[in-house]
Amino acid sequence: MKVAWAGSREAFQVSDRMAKLVANDPVFEKFSKPILSRKELFKNTLRKAAYAWKLINDLHLNEEEAKWLRHYMDEPNYTDLQWEMFVPAIEGQGTEEQKRKWLPLAQTMQIIGTYAQTELGHGSNVRGLETTATFDRQTDEFVMHSPTLTSSKWWPGGMAKVATHAIVYARLMINGHFHGVHGFIVQLRSLDDHSPLPGITLGDIGMKFGHGGYNTMDNGVLRFDRVRIPRNQMLMRVSQVTKEGKFLHSDVPRQLVYGTMVSVRQTIVADASKALSRAVCIATRYSAVRRQFGSHNGGPETQVIDYKTQQSRLFPLLASAFAFRFVGEWLKSLYTDVKQRLEANDFSTLPEAHACTAGIKSLTTAATADGIEECRKLCGGHGYLISSGLPELFAFYVPACTYEGENVVMMLQVARFLVKTVSDLGNKQPVGTAAYLGRVAPLMQKCCVVQTAEDWLNPGVIVEAFEARAARMVISKVQQLGVFDNQEEGFAELSTDLVEASLAHCQLIVVSVFIQRLDQEIPGKGVKQTLKLLCYVYALFLLHKHQGDFLATGYLTPKQASLANEQLRTLYSKIRPNAIALVDSFNHTDHYLSSVLGRYDGNVYPKLYEAALKDPLNDSDIADGIYEYVRPILKQKLQFAKL
Amino acid sequence: MKVAWAGSREAFQVSDRMAKLVANDPVFEKFSKPILSRKELFKNTLRKAAYAWKLINDLHLNEEEAKWLRHYMDEPNYTDLQWEMFVPAIEGQGTEEQKRKWLPLAQTMQIIGTYAQTELGHGSNVRGLETTATFDRQTDEFVMHSPTLTSSKWWPGGMAKVATHAIVYARLMINGHFHGVHGFIVQLRSLDDHSPLPGITLGDIGMKFGHGGYNTMDNGVLRFDRVRIPRNQMLMRVSQVTKEGKFLHSDVPRQLVYGTMVSVRQTIVADASKALSRAVCIATRYSAVRRQFGSHNGGPETQVIDYKTQQSRLFPLLASAFAFRFVGEWLKSLYTDVKQRLEANDFSTLPEAHACTAGIKSLTTAATADGIEECRKLCGGHGYLISSGLPELFAFYVPACTYEGENVVMMLQVARFLVKTVSDLGNKQPVGTAAYLGRVAPLMQKCCVVQTAEDWLNPGVIVEAFEARAARMVISKVQQLGVFDNQEEGFAELSTDLVEASLAHCQLIVVSVFIQRLDQEIPGKGVKQTLKLLCYVYALFLLHKHQGDFLATGYLTPKQASLANEQLRTLYSKIRPNAIALVDSFNHTDHYLSSVLGRYDGNVYPKLYEAALKDPLNDSDIADGIYEYVRPILKQKLQFAKL
Repeated sequence: MKVAWAGSREAFQVSDRMAKLVANDPVFEKFSKPILSRKELFKNTLRKAAYAWKLINDLHLNEEEAKWLRHYMDEPNYTDLQWEMFVPAIEGQGTEEQKRKWLPLAQTMQIIGTYAQTELGHGSNVRGLETTATFDRQTDEFVMHSPTLTSSKWWPGGMAKVATHAIVYARLMINGHFHGVHGFIVQLRSLDDHSPLPGITLGDIGMKFGHGGYNTMDNGVLRFDRVRIPRNQMLMRVSQVTKEGKFLHSDVPRQLVYGTMVSVRQTIVADASKALSRAVCIATRYSAVRRQFGSHNGGPETQVIDYKTQQSRLFPLLASAFAFRFVGEWLKSLYTDVKQRLEANDFSTLPEAHACTAGIKSLTTAATADGIEECRKLCGGHGYLISSGLPELFAFYVPACTYEGENVVMMLQVARFLVKTVSDLGNKQPVGTAAYLGRVAPLMQKCCVVQTAEDWLNPGVIVEAFEARAARMVISKVQQLGVFDNQEEGFAELSTDLVEASLAHCQLIVVSVFIQRLDQEIPGKGVKQTLKLLCYVYALFLLHKHQGDFLATGYLTPKQASLANEQLRTLYSKIRPNAIALVDSFNHTDHYLSSVLGRYDGNVYPKLYEAALKDPLNDSDIADGIYEYVRPILKQKLQFAKL
Repeated sequence: MKVAWAGSREAFQVSDRMAKLVANDPVFEKFSKPILSRKELFKNTLRKAAYAWKLINDLHLNEEEAKWLRHYMDEPNYTDLQWEMFVPAIEGQGTEEQKRKWLPLAQTMQIIGTYAQTELGHGSNVRGLETTATFDRQTDEFVMHSPTLTSSKWWPGGMAKVATHAIVYARLMINGHFHGVHGFIVQLRSLDDHSPLPGITLGDIGMKFGHGGYNTMDNGVLRFDRVRIPRNQMLMRVSQVTKEGKFLHSDVPRQLVYGTMVSVRQTIVADASKALSRAVCIATRYSAVRRQFGSHNGGPETQVIDYKTQQSRLFPLLASAFAFRFVGEWLKSLYTDVKQRLEANDFSTLPEAHACTAGIKSLTTAATADGIEECRKLCGGHGYLISSGLPELFAFYVPACTYEGENVVMMLQVARFLVKTVSDLGNKQPVGTAAYLGRVAPLMQKCCVVQTAEDWLNPGVIVEAFEARAARMVISKVQQLGVFDNQEEGFAELSTDLVEASLAHCQLIVVSVFIQRLDQEIPGKGVKQTLKLLCYVYALFLLHKHQGDFLATGYLTPKQASLANEQLRTLYSKIRPNAIALVDSFNHTDHYLSSVLGRYDGNVYPKLYEAALKDPLNDSDIADGIYEYVRPILKQKLQFAKL
């Protein structure tokens, strides 16, 4: 199962090796994080990041290994931006000359870069950005400027204190004309003494959710007061500005930008499965340790994992972790396919791939964020302790619902794609994940054949149910849209319902990918059988949760929906004996989980006690403030206290 | 509307006066909280608590005023336990003699008490507690002892560092026989020098979720090593132990204990509406300030509150805040009624009242916790900043889902009540909120009469829909239970479905109470009309969210469900012009909200910037750690760095 989770034996070995490297090195210790001040926290992470970079060089780690090492270090820091945003942006949007100049500097960390897109007043809508880059023909330079307070760059990680450079997105202005938003490489700090360059104001935007979380990172604010950069620092692969101030498009297609988005979002989906698997691992292990109620004749109480109410919340999340893992893998192959097609100037599958990744980004991150909090609740009171690892995991994870495409905005993009696909049905055969919409006529008529709970254990039956539901919801929304004179107004008015249809479409994708994965060879005794159980749990859980959709579209009868729910209960009982082995297959080290509740050895209570005693409040029996502020009350002498 | 929200003009005036008193006093300033270390945070709160107590005495505030003052202080601390747990426990469970002795000491704060029930290994199941209180006839004492690690008292607030006394729940043992779990008053610390008494180990259990949140409180661990207390410190109103070691029950009914639970849970429901109203206020105000997309010809972008996707997430929460406010008020009157009946030895309504408060506690706290996080997401990226106020509100609020009755355990209690009510239908007419189950025959047969979207704007239609759904779900579960030979096994197997039926029952209660409230006189022009809109939003939102239930039970047709959804969209448009006024009616001060995004004056961006600059990382341009850990990388001299 470990290999199935990791993807391949090789992938397992690399990740396992890096996980252990980090776990066994005291420099990467994390348990003291909650008691550090913001400054100490930040400094401590700088130290770890430097140490990690040293390890990467000393051990000659390859790119894959380095990525895993940074991942297991598990503290957001400026190197994330360097490798995931700054370098890829130059690679994707820079000219060959720009790449030759900047990439070696970045790859050896002689410069450290960040990615400055969002502004104080502007997030999702890139066209609304206010920062300007005005071409000055006299000096062959761009003048970077922040004309308003709301144009301040806001959020980029590593920008406040570390980054020496940034890719800055700004409105290109030539001779008073606006030519779209483009990226510019701008130096922020002196390479001599690290101070901000003239005209540049930098600062940290303050504490964020959670105690550790992203507070190890210096998300920053940046303002320009007419800062000049050479013309050749505009990223000019797609568009160029000539010495004469002419704005040109190269023959490199703009769609390339979408290709990059597909890549970034695929990483986000992979991260979702990792984060969810951590939470599920903690909650599952603790649910086997924790006992509550159900004692017979003074014997031990029942393990909480044996309660159906616990199983029905926990096991669907366990199944989701696997579903997201496989859909992440599948997106990776989708991206390879798209890239090859783009290189061959074939843009035909791009809209479908783009909608698909946007939707799955939204679905997986939303479910993961909710799932982590659900796991925290499943751990009862102790889940509220930082030492459970879950509060910090939640605080760390939730921004994924907002960054790189806000989740509702993403689903609206999917909706636009679906509406367009249906409108074009006469002329164009839908491809890939939208192919089922080409079979819309039979899907509108068919009814589910299920007659017993057992009948639900059939991939064909499940896929058809999800296809019929999605198709019917999409068609119904398209019909409702037809009533509006103005399509845009209609789209706005029905947007919430369209989001629901998009979700149905995306759930179909995840369910289908999971089922397809089971058609492939999966080594290991009983592994495929167990994965099949999880796949059914995932699908039938969704079906029960959204039974309103399935019933409203008339594809299912109430009886069939109820049989699905009955089967689900049986499946939970079948998952139960495998639950611990399944979460062990994630191969998470105790270091990575950083959870007393999720310890591999199950030694929860003594370790909870031990962790508690480390709190600074336990330094002395009589805490600071007791003599000043509590004793005067007890002694009825509050009037004399200095408050 | 302010009066409608507050409950009465008098209630508004008291709460308004206290809110302003706190907001205008610099001692109660909260913005520096995120940058304090745990020790500083704790000490700072001790100072505020002492100051608040001084104010309460100096200004001769009455109980109601003092409660509001503590509420607006908005930092969990030991006085919460003193007034909400310690004093009520003595009042409820102490004999007259015990009350005479202990209450004056507690009421003047000559002693400070906490409430020590939960243990490291034991939460919801009180009968599972391990701490023992063994009667020693020789000395007329009880010996308090912690026989195992898991028996350590764990979680009580104020216990680690402040409390001098505790009500300790322990297994009463007399001559080797177990006589149930009872409460004992135990002194923990010396009143002379505040050190823990011999045999008593005290400590803080460590950091909790969030930065501020409950970290201002010293939730503690307590262990006994054979600590002796006099016999008269067992709370003996209900049960007594005589000098001779005889265990007796007084004629005071045990049901009194349930009465206290009803009281505590009613407070929790009131707090839910307050917490949700804070989050909704912040998200609504910010949604009117924030603009994104939709710019026409370079004009301003659209206020995000004008998007249906925003409205459909925000307005149901706004409506929920009002719904929970009214159901909280109603629970208060229910409690008064129950108390009067108990005093007259009438226990007939107690099971119904108990189930009702347990269920509504579960429903409102779960919806509020999720709602706060939804509001945070509705604020986009900036909602992730501590200065938005939302992360800390979430971290502060979520334990309400677990404490004072874990939410799923609560719903299972409701389920037991519902199953019993249905089983007894032949003999006993159900009362109060379960009365509709007495009309189960017609409710099983009727169908919804709705034909147009307008038809949904009818309280009778709505209540019948919720009654029919709840009744049908409950009956169907009872029928399914009938298939099992062993009722307990059946209950366990079907527990998840039973929880769904309980939720349906509880939603019916909240909807009905909201509708009943609208039958009362409500002063203020247009106030009743606006509340009606909110009531419909609440009901139809639930109907849409749970349409699976309504369709599966056959009470609604898909067409009728779709008409409800259509009506919901219209309602959102009607709420929109009133949204800001509605959140203003909560009368929350900027101090109480502690949110830059939710400022009354809407001056969001400059204040966000200002708040950011206060982060300690902005003390200097070159942060601590840059020279040690970043410069060596940039200068390619990492091998010489000291890591």
